[in-house]
Amino acid sequence: MSDPVLSPDMVAVIGATIPRVLAKVNALSAPGPGWTRPSYSELESQAHAVIEAEARALDLDISRDAAGNLFARMAGRDPAAVPLYIGSHLDTVSMGGAYDGQAGVIGALAVIAALRTAGITPASDIVLTVTRAEESVWFPVSYIGSRAALGRLEAKDMEAPRSDDGRSLAAHMAGQGYDATAVLAQTPPPPARFVEFHIEQGPILFNAGEAYALVEAVRGGLRYRGAEVRGVWAHSGAAPRNGRADAVVALAELIVAMNAVWDRMLAAGQDLTVTFGRVDAAGPAHAMAKVAGQAGFCLDLRSEDPATLDAADAALKAEIATIEAAHPGVRFDLGLQTRSRPERMSQKMLDWIAAGAALRGDQPRRMLSGGGHDAAAFATAGWDSVMVFIRNWDGSHCPEEGMDIADLAAAVEAVTLALLGDVA
Amino acid sequence: MSDPVLSPDMVAVIGATIPRVLAKVNALSAPGPGWTRPSYSELESQAHAVIEAEARALDLDISRDAAGNLFARMAGRDPAAVPLYIGSHLDTVSMGGAYDGQAGVIGALAVIAALRTAGITPASDIVLTVTRAEESVWFPVSYIGSRAALGRLEAKDMEAPRSDDGRSLAAHMAGQGYDATAVLAQTPPPPARFVEFHIEQGPILFNAGEAYALVEAVRGGLRYRGAEVRGVWAHSGAAPRNGRADAVVALAELIVAMNAVWDRMLAAGQDLTVTFGRVDAAGPAHAMAKVAGQAGFCLDLRSEDPATLDAADAALKAEIATIEAAHPGVRFDLGLQTRSRPERMSQKMLDWIAAGAALRGDQPRRMLSGGGHDAAAFATAGWDSVMVFIRNWDGSHCPEEGMDIADLAAAVEAVTLALLGDVA
Repeated sequence: MSDPVLSPDMVAVIGATIPRVLAKVNALSAPGPGWTRPSYSELESQAHAVIEAEARALDLDISRDAAGNLFARMAGRDPAAVPLYIGSHLDTVSMGGAYDGQAGVIGALAVIAALRTAGITPASDIVLTVTRAEESVWFPVSYIGSRAALGRLEAKDMEAPRSDDGRSLAAHMAGQGYDATAVLAQTPPPPARFVEFHIEQGPILFNAGEAYALVEAVRGGLRYRGAEVRGVWAHSGAAPRNGRADAVVALAELIVAMNAVWDRMLAAGQDLTVTFGRVDAAGPAHAMAKVAGQAGFCLDLRSEDPATLDAADAALKAEIATIEAAHPGVRFDLGLQTRSRPERMSQKMLDWIAAGAALRGDQPRRMLSGGGHDAAAFATAGWDSVMVFIRNWDGSHCPEEGMDIADLAAAVEAVTLALLGDVA
Repeated sequence: MSDPVLSPDMVAVIGATIPRVLAKVNALSAPGPGWTRPSYSELESQAHAVIEAEARALDLDISRDAAGNLFARMAGRDPAAVPLYIGSHLDTVSMGGAYDGQAGVIGALAVIAALRTAGITPASDIVLTVTRAEESVWFPVSYIGSRAALGRLEAKDMEAPRSDDGRSLAAHMAGQGYDATAVLAQTPPPPARFVEFHIEQGPILFNAGEAYALVEAVRGGLRYRGAEVRGVWAHSGAAPRNGRADAVVALAELIVAMNAVWDRMLAAGQDLTVTFGRVDAAGPAHAMAKVAGQAGFCLDLRSEDPATLDAADAALKAEIATIEAAHPGVRFDLGLQTRSRPERMSQKMLDWIAAGAALRGDQPRRMLSGGGHDAAAFATAGWDSVMVFIRNWDGSHCPEEGMDIADLAAAVEAVTLALLGDVA
């Protein structure tokens, strides 16, 4: 039996579907630079409707769960075979990019479109999966949509406030027609297989000149989203250096100290990222002529190893104690800590996609994901999960976020070839 | 001839006037913690009206100049004698304190009330002076009201935007009934004498247990009110340490470096304060999961010596060059620099008030003012100016700003005794 190949029609439909549907989804955004579709916003719902219409045009069997996750099923040859779910999310961070989430959804759609074009019935059901609320900048809860689908959301999560308006997750779900009580009561599907295409969100593939890669593990996170340092307000020109309890200076010292901790831990071979993404000493009480008595901040620590996160957290607390001792009147309050655990991807699924990639002559590297993704939630729930990273540049979670459609198409072809291998 | 003394009625009227009028003025504030009366706001105008009514009740001769500065004249025995102007301002920073500015206005009113109570005619005219727009957090222009009175405001100053709403100084003057063109055209009064009571805004007198002091010089300032650092937005979990251009980290390094510069310059005997009062990495594009690509900040340098300000500014630029070299992709833009020059107070006036203080058994220390004040603008214009600092605590430019009315009363008594010495 000869190796499976993609017909010119299949290659063409993949290449045409991606830019066409991306443009439709990205026409939906709040005003401002880049793309903004908050979790459980009307804009996110409209983006879901775009994909639902595309799925109907492919004659897929549409359903939504209680949380508004979209499932569009293409029937396989064997109804008893373990289904392959494939997809991602359509919400974005505030002023985010054109590819994060949407590339994964549209890549999945392109896989199914290619099979339909060729009249191929897959070995198992394939379920185009569009989750809700993946971007955790909106609610302080990880992977809301996928965890809701998987029966892993808790009642307390429903009270989480959205960062822009303070209204609860339950209220925002209700605003889009979904009932939090029903979400908590729903029965998850039996564990199956999950594939997610996603931009890398880092420079590794771009610097290496590689179009796509396979993700072996997703880093976990340890976050302080609402941390604060308090000092004593004073006059900028009159308060002598020694008596000051300057919140801005104390926070600057902590940021510099934690970057030194990061250096030391990297040098010791530990996997870690340290990010103070938001610093707020710009309230109505802050002014050019005042020593700052208060500053707010976020801290995001990520690693593939929970022990490394614990060590970084211990170092953080030690640095805070040192800074507080040096500046009487300064007190840090880290606020609530949230965590997401690191997740290994499925070796079986990695090998399966690698086989498809080999059919087009590719040997994609295996790497870590720094960002958390829905695939991690599926892995946590016991699904055989895997991610395919697409080369990108100019950062991510920002308007400049870049991706070449040909790179996503190459990864879509690799997965499609893996599916053809199952059929053959 | 015996030493002048204050009658019990004079002491009583000083002690009663201060809290009574302070309460009236401080009933006027925008909502929120502390006191907020923006420069050229309706609230500032209402506070002026309170003092104008008090001045009318003391039968003073009321006038306003084109900029809305209030002058309330008590006629002296010799119309040709050099008048004594005495006063301060009634605007506040955002969420400021109960005493900054208003204590100086009400102290001046108390001096005149004491003379009226005793039926004493002073040697020269005394002019209760209530300036507008002293707090430079609102407009990026120093001493607006007093410089307007002194004919030292320039046409370009009228275009300065107010920090809360971006509308120009000319527009805000017009909103309170004053015409910018007339302000620029008005003839200043001939140089005379100026006295300003003001809280210290620092801990020196509080720590020393001294009620009031005489100010020998007002520190000058060198400010960057709209500085910014730009980096590259990236994903918090995916961007490796080495490739990052993190605006928050670069700014933290600058803050720590400038505090080290401050330490070195203090150790070398130079007079300096260094304050980053406002840091803004909290816009809609900033998030927990993003490396910051931008951060705004203010920097306020103050010294009694312009050469020290120049040296600190040179050190700032050297530190920025070092940080930019260490972080490719990071660029600082300091924006517009503004300056106010240090001003020496009048030796003659210092000795004159010291003589009054000696009559009540006080030997007030002589010290620097860290804050800029209207008295500096009068000194710049060639007036014989002096300030009397009142002990305060819990900072200044903040709601907690504390002052004991008895301390202000003691300083008012000292100045009143100095005036009685002229009469005697």
